[in-house]
This record gives sequence, C-alpha cells and structure tokens, in this order.
Amino acid sequence: MAFLTHLECAKCGKTYDPNLIHNLCECGGPLLVRYDLKAAAAAVSPARLAGRPANLWRYREVLPVQNEANIVTLGEGMTPLLPLPRLGSAMGLPGLLLKDEGVNPTGTFKARGAATGISRAKELGIRAVAMPTNGNAGGAWASYGARAGIEVTLVMPVDAPAMSVLEATAVGARAYMVRGQITDAGAIVAKSAKAHGWFEAATLKEPYRIEGKKTMGYEIAEQMGWTLPDVILYPTGGGVGIIGIYKAILEMREMGWLPDSVKMPRLVAVQAEGCQPIVKAFNEGKDVSEKWENAETVAQGIRVPKALGDFLVLQAVRATGGTCVAVPDADTLWGLEQISRLEGAFICPEGASLVGAARNLLRDGWLQPDEKVLLLNTGAGIKYPDILRPELPVLEIGAAI
Amino acid sequence: MAFLTHLECAKCGKTYDPNLIHNLCECGGPLLVRYDLKAAAAAVSPARLAGRPANLWRYREVLPVQNEANIVTLGEGMTPLLPLPRLGSAMGLPGLLLKDEGVNPTGTFKARGAATGISRAKELGIRAVAMPTNGNAGGAWASYGARAGIEVTLVMPVDAPAMSVLEATAVGARAYMVRGQITDAGAIVAKSAKAHGWFEAATLKEPYRIEGKKTMGYEIAEQMGWTLPDVILYPTGGGVGIIGIYKAILEMREMGWLPDSVKMPRLVAVQAEGCQPIVKAFNEGKDVSEKWENAETVAQGIRVPKALGDFLVLQAVRATGGTCVAVPDADTLWGLEQISRLEGAFICPEGASLVGAARNLLRDGWLQPDEKVLLLNTGAGIKYPDILRPELPVLEIGAAI
Repeated sequence: MAFLTHLECAKCGKTYDPNLIHNLCECGGPLLVRYDLKAAAAAVSPARLAGRPANLWRYREVLPVQNEANIVTLGEGMTPLLPLPRLGSAMGLPGLLLKDEGVNPTGTFKARGAATGISRAKELGIRAVAMPTNGNAGGAWASYGARAGIEVTLVMPVDAPAMSVLEATAVGARAYMVRGQITDAGAIVAKSAKAHGWFEAATLKEPYRIEGKKTMGYEIAEQMGWTLPDVILYPTGGGVGIIGIYKAILEMREMGWLPDSVKMPRLVAVQAEGCQPIVKAFNEGKDVSEKWENAETVAQGIRVPKALGDFLVLQAVRATGGTCVAVPDADTLWGLEQISRLEGAFICPEGASLVGAARNLLRDGWLQPDEKVLLLNTGAGIKYPDILRPELPVLEIGAAI
Repeated sequence: MAFLTHLECAKCGKTYDPNLIHNLCECGGPLLVRYDLKAAAAAVSPARLAGRPANLWRYREVLPVQNEANIVTLGEGMTPLLPLPRLGSAMGLPGLLLKDEGVNPTGTFKARGAATGISRAKELGIRAVAMPTNGNAGGAWASYGARAGIEVTLVMPVDAPAMSVLEATAVGARAYMVRGQITDAGAIVAKSAKAHGWFEAATLKEPYRIEGKKTMGYEIAEQMGWTLPDVILYPTGGGVGIIGIYKAILEMREMGWLPDSVKMPRLVAVQAEGCQPIVKAFNEGKDVSEKWENAETVAQGIRVPKALGDFLVLQAVRATGGTCVAVPDADTLWGLEQISRLEGAFICPEGASLVGAARNLLRDGWLQPDEKVLLLNTGAGIKYPDILRPELPVLEIGAAI
C-alpha cells in the first residue's frame, strides 16, 4: 500500500511531503494526492480486485493510507449501481442508472471522505479535527472519528438537518450551530482551530477526503465491467465528488484499467436554482465562482455559496464536454416523487435534483435518448425526515379496511 | 437458478408445489423453502462466488427466484462485518464482531426479506400484497413493491417509528395505523385481504422473506473465510433472522461449504424485558410461546407479543446450545451509547440491546472472554430519530469557540 508519492497543489503545482501534516498550499490552493501509478498498476490488476471485500479499501493501491493498521472503516463503499427501468422509460431515457450512495454507513457518500480522511489523520498522529458542515459530512466525520478515538468538533448552520445533529451527538462529537451558512461555520472553525490544537478538516482544506470520494469513479467502472456511462450527473455543493470521479478516471486511464475505446463521460455539475455559483461561473465563461448571496434550497447538502474547489469542478466539466445546470426546488421535489414511486428509491433531495436535471437536459436536446446517463445519488431520503409530512388514517382494533 | 424443489411445512412436514401461491400449511404451520442442495453445490463452489456482485443475489443457487428477470433489487445484502476492538476491549470481549444491517437499502435488514418476497411475488404473478408491520418491514416492502410495480398495503401501530411511515408513503404505499399492537394490525390485514384480493405477506405467512434473511448466515460464513463465530446474538421479534441464519448454516453444511471442523455457533435470541414471550417459553421448557400482554420497549422492532415462528426460534436456540435472554431498556440505551461512542456505529435500539445482552452473558459466565461473539445489528440508528434529543449551543456569525 505504499504507492503514495507526494501532495501537489491543484493551482500552482508546488509539491509537499505526504508524511507531514498539511492543509492548503502556500498559494491557497487545495492539495491533491499523487501516486506512483505505474507501480500501482504493476501491483494489482482489475481482475485481481474481484475477490476483495466489498468496500472502498479494495482500491487500496490508489489510496493514501500507508499502513493497513491505520484503516478506520465502517464498511463504506461498493454501493449499488442500479438500472432505473421504470423511471427511465417514463422519462424517455431507458439507459438511466443510479449509483446509490445512501447505502453507506451514516447514509451518505460523506462516509467515503470521512473514512480516508480520518484514517490518514490517525496515520499522521492527529488527535483532534474540526470542520464546518451542512450536516452529513459532520455525521460521517463524527462517526469515523469516534471509531478512531479522534476528537471531532463540528460547526453547522442552525437549519442543518436534524438527523446529522442526532448522529453527530450520538457518537459523542462536540457540535455547535451557527446562525448563518456553511461559510460562516467555516470562518468560526478557522478562527478557533489553532487555539484548541484542532486540525482543520474543512472540504479540500485537508487533502485526503477526496481520495475516498474518488472511489465512486473506480466502482462505477468496475461495476460496469470496466466501461463508463456516457454522462454522469452529480449534485454539486463543495464539488469533491465530481472532482474525485474525474481524478479517478484519469488515474484508471493512466494505469491502463480502462481501454482507450472507453470514452470519458460528460460530467454535469447540478446545483439548486437558489444556490448556483458554479453554474453562473460556467455560463459566464469564468474559471472561478463568486459567493452566492442569500443561498436557499430544499437540497441543503448543496447549499454551498462558495466552494474552495470551484475551479476544479469547472475544469472537469469543461474538459469532459459536460455542463453545469441549476434545478428549481419544484423540479427536485418532482424528481423525488418520480424516483421514489417508480423505483422504490427514496433518495435525498440532492440526488433527486438530478432527476429534474436529466429531464430538463433531455428536453433541451443536451442528452440523447439512447445515452447511458448515471445519476449519482449522494444519500438516503431517510436523512431528511422533514421533507415530507405524511398523515395516515388511524383504525381501531378489530377494524377492517 | 432452478434448484428450488418444494415448500415444506415446518410443523407437519407436508409439501407444496412452489409454483403455486401459498400462505400457511393446512395445519397452520409456516412453509419453508427446500432446494436440491446437491445440485446447487455442484453448480457453484464458495471460491466461484468471489467475483459476483456484492449483494445477496450472489447466493442465487440457494434462493427461490427461478428466472433472473424477476429479481427486484435495490442492492441489498453483503453488509459490513466489522471487528469492534474498542468496545470489545472495554467489555472484556476482544473478539466482538458486528454484522451491520443498517447499511442496506431502507436502512434495515428488512430489505433482504422484502427483496426475495417481492421478487417471488412478481414471479408468481401477484399484483398486490398487504402486511402488518412495526415499521421497518413496511418501509422495505413498500420500497421493493414500488420498484416491482406491485401495490403494497400496510397496517402499523400508531406509535410505529415515524421514519417508516415517511418511507412507506414516499414510495407510494397505502398505509394505515391502528390503535394497538402489531398483532392487532395483523388481524386487520387478515380480515381485509381477501375482500381486496391482496396477498397476505405477514411474517412467515409468506414463505420467501426468510430466504432473503438467511443470506445473513451465508455472508457471515463467506466474510469469515468459511468459518463461523462461536456465538451469534440476534434481536428477536418475529425471529425470522435467527431462523434464517440457522437454516443457512444447515444448508451450507449439507452443501459442503463449511468444513466439518467448523462448529455450529450458539444462537442467542435476545428480547426486551418489556416483551419477552420467547424467553419465557425457553425458561419454562416450552415449545411455543404465549402472547405477551402489555408489551412495551424502546426497541420497537422487537415488540412482537406472539411470533408465528416462535417454535422455530426455540428449536434453533436449543439445537445449538444457545439461550434466550431479556434485556431491560436501560441496558439497551447503555449499549447504544457504548457502541456509538466507542465505535462510531450509531445503530438501532434492537441492535443495541445485544450489547447489553453480551455484557450480561459475560458477567454470568455464559460467554467466555476469548470467544468470537457476533452481534447482528438489524438497522441504522437514524431510523429512530426520537431516541435521542440533542440540543446544541448556537453561535452567532463571526464567533469563536
């Protein structure tokens, strides 16, 4: 498991020793993890992966943990890749697919980033981490921190989903709310971390969570028999997932795990109409986004007014011939109803926004009916108990229906 | 996939044609599914399973679906088997293991039974099913029913967990509550099913859900390299999981998948102090249980006053040298806190009752410190948002901690 070579700034290219603790590059850019991919490819082949356990550590040669004893796992990864025949045929996209990240420990894809992030924190001797979160990342980092015996401090917006608060406190994290947004939470963490000796683990301020997220790309390829879909739709807040999937595909190409005949999927960053800084930057031809004011959407996980990795999302989208689109909340709720009722997949609103986005992109001719379109659902609907308010008829004992 | 031979009454041994729709045997006994295990063993070996997808359909030769096209799946099964080093060492049971069924579609092990039950319903041409439920089974059957296009009607106690109500209605099930317990719900379903043409899918009144549940046993063996733990603790309501795991171990032995040197684990049925009909029957040396009056426990999923399969649970426990124990709610909540804080595993109260049970069994000398003890956690803690009531400090924008 020793193919990790260095950290590299995604902005200026400066390199860093991976055996030391780092946040951002001197220039303010996020650090990406680099490997000796030639050696990794020589150590393991796709065929040899088959017998490995069904979690993301099956890709250990391209993961940053050096010593297996430092792996902190709750069994994350190798989530289902499902065809959506009933929804797809109703929408006119028979090749529609769902990668369902709700089937992860803590119910979201955040488990992946927390697993690799906490594992590396353990390996580097970090005893306490702190981060801002819209909720799900906090629940995940709190859980993996508890398993590792690493102290976790969270700051989240007052309207963060109650389930994440529940989860984080259940596992013993120190958690605070802020009357503001995730960027305000981030400012509090940044201000407080040094005084308390906490390692700042905010999105892309620590280099390793993206390595966990990228395994979604490896899994999609493996589950599709080392091919890829034509298009991947991803609900974009901080954007780590889409950056990670793109990184994974480039790595797999370099290792020869994907035949040259396999085309790069067009990557689509989906945001909410009420918080679409990256869509705006994309449409204006800009390389970075501006902070979105008064951000508001039912899909709380993608309510990120300004993402540190915005430029990497835009690079990935443009390099793959993809696009960035915003979805009104009404379309997200429509998508949630469609995929729940037709496929029994009660997913999170972030994931449901992709259903609306796919419909709109097909209507506009950007998607073709015969394309394989993958929706990357980031979490389970049950993490959002407030999204629906069912009221059931109540019967008395001995009644009949 | 055609090794299914017949259905057999677990009470009187009478056999039935598996190509017809059946509920119970004429004698009132539940029907178990039987296979040509010799032929199944010739068709696939444990080594050949390794490359198959990470879900329960990897064991398709010992599952009842005849035609692959009838499989209704959301990716259930192949859940994590985790060591619990920190909790185990705190408890004096270093070999403690967790099979975490919370990492399933719909967040509980009920997904397994719903997957095989709904798949067979589809295969047999059933268009509508109805069932009583304490909640989680309802959420699962509603979801798989939606994916299959099969209509699902549910009746659940008024105090069923809100998350299951949410889940069931999100996917479009017809759901009712009853001012009573699951047995009262069952009576309403039984009374109403014929009039509406619904197939009654109550626990063990339909033969196929147990086949999905039994795959937990296959997975434990495969994940432990075709060995087994010394003891398995299982939270027992209807008891289908423990019956299924026992059935699986017998099948694996018959197929030669487990070497003779692998001992049968002692199976432990854990119930709640406030609803312990099977524990009482066990202690009194009886073969069946009596209905438990005024059942009440924080672990709602095991609040089953009278289980149709009680005699099968008692048989499995006695045949394996196991035992039946009741856990006070206080020990369950203690167990929840311990496993959450020490392992980051925020599990459901039913699963948490096993932590209390293990502590008590070790204290009483029934468990030995060097034994491999597996806790079968049936679901995720996030399905029970009311179990904890966290209140967090609220900061203002610009604050420091």
